[in-house]
Amino acid sequence: MAMRASATDMIPTSGADEPLLHGGDLGAARRLFPGAPAPFIDLSTGINPNRYPLPPFSADLFARLPEPAAAAAVAAAAARAYGAPSAGHVVLAPGTQILLPLVAGLVRPRRAAVVVPTYAEHARAAALVGHDVEAIREIDGCRDAGLVMVGNPNNPDGRLHARAALLGLAKDLRRRGGLLVVDEAFMDVGPPNASLAADVSCGNVVVLRSFGKFFGLAGIRLGFALCAPAIAMRLAAALGPWAVSAPALAVAAKALADAAWRERTRRRLERAAKRLDAILAGSDIDILGGTSLFRLARTPEASALFHHLGRAGILVRAFPDNPSWLRFGLPANKREWQRLDGAMASFRDSGRAIAHEPVAGLAGRRGGRSAKDIDRLR
Amino acid sequence: MAMRASATDMIPTSGADEPLLHGGDLGAARRLFPGAPAPFIDLSTGINPNRYPLPPFSADLFARLPEPAAAAAVAAAAARAYGAPSAGHVVLAPGTQILLPLVAGLVRPRRAAVVVPTYAEHARAAALVGHDVEAIREIDGCRDAGLVMVGNPNNPDGRLHARAALLGLAKDLRRRGGLLVVDEAFMDVGPPNASLAADVSCGNVVVLRSFGKFFGLAGIRLGFALCAPAIAMRLAAALGPWAVSAPALAVAAKALADAAWRERTRRRLERAAKRLDAILAGSDIDILGGTSLFRLARTPEASALFHHLGRAGILVRAFPDNPSWLRFGLPANKREWQRLDGAMASFRDSGRAIAHEPVAGLAGRRGGRSAKDIDRLR
Repeated sequence: MAMRASATDMIPTSGADEPLLHGGDLGAARRLFPGAPAPFIDLSTGINPNRYPLPPFSADLFARLPEPAAAAAVAAAAARAYGAPSAGHVVLAPGTQILLPLVAGLVRPRRAAVVVPTYAEHARAAALVGHDVEAIREIDGCRDAGLVMVGNPNNPDGRLHARAALLGLAKDLRRRGGLLVVDEAFMDVGPPNASLAADVSCGNVVVLRSFGKFFGLAGIRLGFALCAPAIAMRLAAALGPWAVSAPALAVAAKALADAAWRERTRRRLERAAKRLDAILAGSDIDILGGTSLFRLARTPEASALFHHLGRAGILVRAFPDNPSWLRFGLPANKREWQRLDGAMASFRDSGRAIAHEPVAGLAGRRGGRSAKDIDRLR
Repeated sequence: MAMRASATDMIPTSGADEPLLHGGDLGAARRLFPGAPAPFIDLSTGINPNRYPLPPFSADLFARLPEPAAAAAVAAAAARAYGAPSAGHVVLAPGTQILLPLVAGLVRPRRAAVVVPTYAEHARAAALVGHDVEAIREIDGCRDAGLVMVGNPNNPDGRLHARAALLGLAKDLRRRGGLLVVDEAFMDVGPPNASLAADVSCGNVVVLRSFGKFFGLAGIRLGFALCAPAIAMRLAAALGPWAVSAPALAVAAKALADAAWRERTRRRLERAAKRLDAILAGSDIDILGGTSLFRLARTPEASALFHHLGRAGILVRAFPDNPSWLRFGLPANKREWQRLDGAMASFRDSGRAIAHEPVAGLAGRRGGRSAKDIDRLR
């Protein structure tokens, strides 16, 4: 109160302060479906459920400040793994999420274009730093924006933009002092030569890479910006020293250099995604797209299926703005595949008797579940 | 190059992009003192060398996104431990370092006053977001600044500012829309009732608290901003979801609630600091100040002592801008105390025969050691 009355020079809020809601929140799932069998299966994210093996961590890793040499080694390993020109083109961060406003803030506030549908944090980050955000469907619809953010492959629909098209867009943007941000969070399972990692020397392209999704280690918080060294220095300056935890550095140094594991995992995830397709197809659900780490499904019964699966202890991702969509991540093991298979079969067998109701519609009918709880599961 | 030529709308750099150099870099110490006995003893930071015991970590903590409920529990524990009004007054971050530019950026760029001598990142963060930074010696020397940053107790001299004086300063700042940032990184070992944690509701005070220093867990990256809820929401929005790793949340929930360990540790650190005083006093060194986690020492032979200790495998913190200063952290165990004691005794016994030379002066005379290496040890 005192602040509002007197701290007049406080920079006014952009209106993008309200937190968005995301997948992966099993606490909220348990509140929404208190009778579901345990353990809950989390298919609401695109995180590899079979993580890279953790190395033994020395207690020193937790106790001491992360060593600059350890961070430098991870930057070098990331440059090699992702195909960036050098370690000087790599910025380490505690997850790519934290980089979004920093990257969006590299250019003066003006018009920003976000290619949709996509990860909702792109638009929020751009608005947060003062851009006037426009949602566009095609990358050639943004020729007057100063900042363009695009997922490639995109989440949730898996849409791929050709490298040549993105480089053409970057060139156009460069002419007017603009910046292209390519979120390659799922590029580890993308097609060969689709990444723009090797192209960031052009100067106005920032590629974001997620460590936690493909390596199945989202809890350690690690992500990368690949960009020209002049931009890398500025992002590193904003993050300051010791941005990434020492345990994260220790596992990443090993994982990024493990080409055999990465190749084996790409193949395994591809097989798993096809298995998921087969299960969904059996229920007469359209697959709109995806990557090997998730599939975007469409069915007019999305809401009923979301609740059916929830009651069976399986959390998938719903999209309030697209009520016929559900996103499915991958089960972790035989037991989880069986439970998903069984739950989908019982949904079919129920003859779709469950009323088709919007997600929020359930709130009024089930005492213990608030609309807020349901919103948290978007 | 392409970027500089064409990306004209890229926000110009503030000149604060160059990384500063800090303690805790044993890799650099080993390069500077290749003949030193192993293991190197790191007294160059103010981190508790006897960490809080790590709980067993489930693999899920590394694999899954950190749960919102886990972060909320840590916010509540931090509010109780530090005395903030509520969990809504607490922001979690992967270290307080990353918060510095975000906090400095809450007010429009204008004059910022940093109370010196202090942690060099305060001034860098303020400059990074566009403030015109002025170093001041006394908090009443900054009555026209829009942002004031002060360490309390301060690093490296341990100086304490009275709570009433800081609240008076906050009131003055509030009248002109200004913000007071109090870095309480070492307040866990400060006197009772000196913290401003309980006062942040006034609206224009942000208190920073470090988890890693007192709990001896700097590698996990965790810090807090305590502030009015309106500011907390804005900082949280800039950090985005999942800013702190799940293992960090797991250990912090336990550690912050462990009042007995905290009290025992405060007493143990106090005894250790007195033991350090006795060792330094035996070498006729002035103690300028400090906290129970470090001491700031002054001697005209600081440079010679820095190198003597380095050759004995003990790293302390030198201050190029104050060449007669050295900062000593605490040895971890009996063996480390003995080595420090022995190295200080041999320094005395050497009759101070080693030439008094500025730190950088050594660079030319020792082939394998570059000035850069020495700089890294500042």
